Amino acid sequence: MSTKPYKGFEPAWIKEAAPAKSYRSIFRWGDPEFVKYPKEALYKMMKETFKMTDDDFKGYCGDVGLDEVKLDMPSKLDEKHINALKEIFGDEFVSVEDYDRLSVAYGQTAYDLMRMREKRIDSLPDVVVYPDTAEQVEKCVAYCVANKIPLYVYGGGSSVTRGVEPIKGGVSMDMRKRFNKVINFNETDQTITVQAGMSGPCLEKTLNEAVKNFGAKRAYTCGHFPQSFEYSSVGGWVVTRGSGQNSTYYGCITDIVLSQKYATPIGRVETSHYPREATGPNLNQIMMGSEGTFGVLTEVTLKIFRYMPENRKRYSYIFKDWETAMDAAREMMQSECGFSSVFRLSDPEETNLMLRLYNVDETPLHPLLDKLGYKDMERCLFLGFTEGEEGYSKNVRKNIAKIAKKHGAMSLTGFVCKSWEHGRFNDPYMRDSMMDFGICTDTLECTVNWSNMAQVHRDVRKVCHALPNTIVTTHMSHCYPQGANLYFIFITKISDAEEFKAYHTTILDAIQKSGAAISHHHGIGKMFAPWLEGYIGKTEYGMVRALKNYFDPDYLMNPGGTIGLDLPEEDKKFLKENN
Amino acid sequence: MSTKPYKGFEPAWIKEAAPAKSYRSIFRWGDPEFVKYPKEALYKMMKETFKMTDDDFKGYCGDVGLDEVKLDMPSKLDEKHINALKEIFGDEFVSVEDYDRLSVAYGQTAYDLMRMREKRIDSLPDVVVYPDTAEQVEKCVAYCVANKIPLYVYGGGSSVTRGVEPIKGGVSMDMRKRFNKVINFNETDQTITVQAGMSGPCLEKTLNEAVKNFGAKRAYTCGHFPQSFEYSSVGGWVVTRGSGQNSTYYGCITDIVLSQKYATPIGRVETSHYPREATGPNLNQIMMGSEGTFGVLTEVTLKIFRYMPENRKRYSYIFKDWETAMDAAREMMQSECGFSSVFRLSDPEETNLMLRLYNVDETPLHPLLDKLGYKDMERCLFLGFTEGEEGYSKNVRKNIAKIAKKHGAMSLTGFVCKSWEHGRFNDPYMRDSMMDFGICTDTLECTVNWSNMAQVHRDVRKVCHALPNTIVTTHMSHCYPQGANLYFIFITKISDAEEFKAYHTTILDAIQKSGAAISHHHGIGKMFAPWLEGYIGKTEYGMVRALKNYFDPDYLMNPGGTIGLDLPEEDKKFLKENN
Repeated sequence: MSTKPYKGFEPAWIKEAAPAKSYRSIFRWGDPEFVKYPKEALYKMMKETFKMTDDDFKGYCGDVGLDEVKLDMPSKLDEKHINALKEIFGDEFVSVEDYDRLSVAYGQTAYDLMRMREKRIDSLPDVVVYPDTAEQVEKCVAYCVANKIPLYVYGGGSSVTRGVEPIKGGVSMDMRKRFNKVINFNETDQTITVQAGMSGPCLEKTLNEAVKNFGAKRAYTCGHFPQSFEYSSVGGWVVTRGSGQNSTYYGCITDIVLSQKYATPIGRVETSHYPREATGPNLNQIMMGSEGTFGVLTEVTLKIFRYMPENRKRYSYIFKDWETAMDAAREMMQSECGFSSVFRLSDPEETNLMLRLYNVDETPLHPLLDKLGYKDMERCLFLGFTEGEEGYSKNVRKNIAKIAKKHGAMSLTGFVCKSWEHGRFNDPYMRDSMMDFGICTDTLECTVNWSNMAQVHRDVRKVCHALPNTIVTTHMSHCYPQGANLYFIFITKISDAEEFKAYHTTILDAIQKSGAAISHHHGIGKMFAPWLEGYIGKTEYGMVRALKNYFDPDYLMNPGGTIGLDLPEEDKKFLKENN
Repeated sequence: MSTKPYKGFEPAWIKEAAPAKSYRSIFRWGDPEFVKYPKEALYKMMKETFKMTDDDFKGYCGDVGLDEVKLDMPSKLDEKHINALKEIFGDEFVSVEDYDRLSVAYGQTAYDLMRMREKRIDSLPDVVVYPDTAEQVEKCVAYCVANKIPLYVYGGGSSVTRGVEPIKGGVSMDMRKRFNKVINFNETDQTITVQAGMSGPCLEKTLNEAVKNFGAKRAYTCGHFPQSFEYSSVGGWVVTRGSGQNSTYYGCITDIVLSQKYATPIGRVETSHYPREATGPNLNQIMMGSEGTFGVLTEVTLKIFRYMPENRKRYSYIFKDWETAMDAAREMMQSECGFSSVFRLSDPEETNLMLRLYNVDETPLHPLLDKLGYKDMERCLFLGFTEGEEGYSKNVRKNIAKIAKKHGAMSLTGFVCKSWEHGRFNDPYMRDSMMDFGICTDTLECTVNWSNMAQVHRDVRKVCHALPNTIVTTHMSHCYPQGANLYFIFITKISDAEEFKAYHTTILDAIQKSGAAISHHHGIGKMFAPWLEGYIGKTEYGMVRALKNYFDPDYLMNPGGTIGLDLPEEDKKFLKENN
């Protein structure tokens, strides 16, 4: 990625591809050829914030992982099991190689990246298998259950909750290689059925080119674009209850899924495929969120949407303060004029950073903002774009403009929006470049209602800022008439995994204490598990356990604390008074 | 209700109010003062269809239930239990009177009405209690569980699935008298929290008058208007997963509920109140559809919507045939122009009847339709209206007009729509008048996807028409981009309860064989229970049973087959090949 040359000192950002088979090739985000690092203005800002000097950027902080993976941790699984798995998957699709095993050991939370940089291997599967068909997955689940072998799934690998981590060893299914096929395309119903390992970009391309691929009448879109889009899988979206950045219009994945098929310890489970039913508890909604603990998701049928980018209207506004901006956002969501697709409101601290990231600081407008009454560290940036049929899209755009104006906002045109779109999927690359110098970026997010949004924002920021040298930016996205997601990005000088974990815990405690839902779309995994029962309530959580005992009484599916199911009582956090 | 005087013979429709304390006052629909009966043209049509003459309408068919309720079935519950319940609810809110007990014994399926006319009392609670608070309900549930007493709930009483029937006797909670209060109104979040016994009209009036009632800034609507609206309860909507006639815009009740509170045998259960979460399986979606078998719903928080009837646009169109009309409806639902609120498409047989019911047969247009190419028993009537912000509403209306025109439809203006609105909640009254002469009206409904809609419509109608003397009208409503509800109304000459049940079974078998979801919004209750496990699948159904065993291991909550939980294996219907 090209960036303007620095005028002053430039740190030695690692710009070359990570060597094949290296640690770095595993922990580094995405495309090995692609690099992103801060532009000079941002670099200067970081030095100031973290009280660092150029000297601090003259050498890397710890190991940057350029060496080849070599472990002294042989597979503990008996040869007969390996052979049995080869019977199921074929010889070349079963691996006990160090690199293959380490590749699926961790996800993408900073805790994972730091442990990998520290060459600290807490978890490792004994064997990795590469499924081709749902039947193979079913056979493998049955084999693991019969032989009491723990079973894990690695979808796209972008989990930030330790969801994929094979804490108890055993088998890990790597879905990336072969489990990514289209099973059915139904244009009449506007649905597509895919294997769970289908990647985001592959699904979207398949749908955009539906005319060519399926002889369809028109192009379609999946409507689901999480930040991790490029390295996420459909299965991961579904089992964690993910949301894309366009969810305010298209819905979260739980709205987009029509039906699912699982391989569970007690056999195949298929949910029904109708848009609504009054036939008892909703089984689709039970399976989504089970995060691999009830069984392995094999196939998913998704609703699809007409691909009409020609109707997209972009907007961005600057508001004078957070409170007014929140009011305006609420009015937009409750006015019943239709919903914007991307709908993102940054708080003052994030706005300060984003105006730099989106290069508004390089325009003549930037110095004028203060004079016009939109003051730095008070002003709030709001941006988004609309989708849908032309008249619908126009009407949403028109109403947003009207409401923004009524709340004293000034339009920044579609310029900011385009900058955001340009960088929307590649921000994670910057994280690696900064971590090479000991600066950690991570995120936490939660759901709030409009009525407790201001308080949660205040409480969580207060806790974050009590920690030294921290930037905490917040935005509201994934909005609803009743509330929204609050998304916290914290950037701080930490490079030790355990120090990070303690920091993360402090913030999560604050989120739970504030009363917010502990995750809107990242899921629970093993990292957030200690807080889950405390958040849901003991009697309520018992439903999840009852379902687990039905499906997997031997606790072999994604064991080791996932969604709190096999977590020791003393590890659980009960912060609410009524628990 | 005034109807034009008949020119020829007029049957002696019972026009006076049902006597107080009479059987008729229980089984008759709704307002005791309101009567509706067929106009002369419809009466003539029925005579033809059912091969009847005026003579057949000169005397009532069986007992019309004008006498006072007197049963010889004393309460079997021990006096100490009655006293304990009086401790909980207060002396005057516990009744063992015949009339009070019979009032809550049956719902509103034709099977119920016929049994009541036959004075056949299959089920009767031993005692009726009238809760005032959630705490009383919790105490009552705990008491019943401790003493192994079956517990039933009677909400609005409009169940058409035998959902409320106290098959095992015990306690029935009648929610109508006192359990109907507003607990909280939150204008910021646009939510209202109510007790489960709150009636539809009371909720709607409360919201329409929010300015007066709560000092709100504007008026609101609940957005949920089932045909049974006037005699339905919020609790009934929620536990059965109901849908209102405006659901295509507002969503089904499962979309409208934000959170719920239950009194279960293992204690209070409260679901969280955020619009979306990624915190494991969705507990709200587990509890909805449990139909009283996991516990008693006490309080519900609903999303509310801005009340803007001034923006409503009405439309009706006549299409040349069912196939073209289905295509047009699908295009409207998939075009992403926004959704109409009421969205109802009648098949040719229903259109034939509806043009009479909506008095189009009295306009000069009626005889012209055939000449214009919209032929009787081929043409299809499509009607609806829009809601939402002005521009949104207009855009939906505009796109519907465009798509209708493209599919060769002719506008019938808003006239038909207004007729429909006028009668939308009082059609059930006509049912009683016809049943006095042995003509039975009942409904069955299911969900289909667009791709199997035509086939389900054909298969089910074929089975219905194989039965003698039957009118079967069908409409599509509650539409989605992926499918819709198909709603069958059958009118036939049956007056014997068991004959009706056999008839009902035949049609339901046909629905399940056709592959449709066995209920879109009526729920399962005890009447549809035999088909549920066969529809869902054995392994899948086990989830429901696992949850039941968690909440109510003694099977005391709405026992007697509700959602198939305590149904003998031999009563279950497994029609699908893969079950």
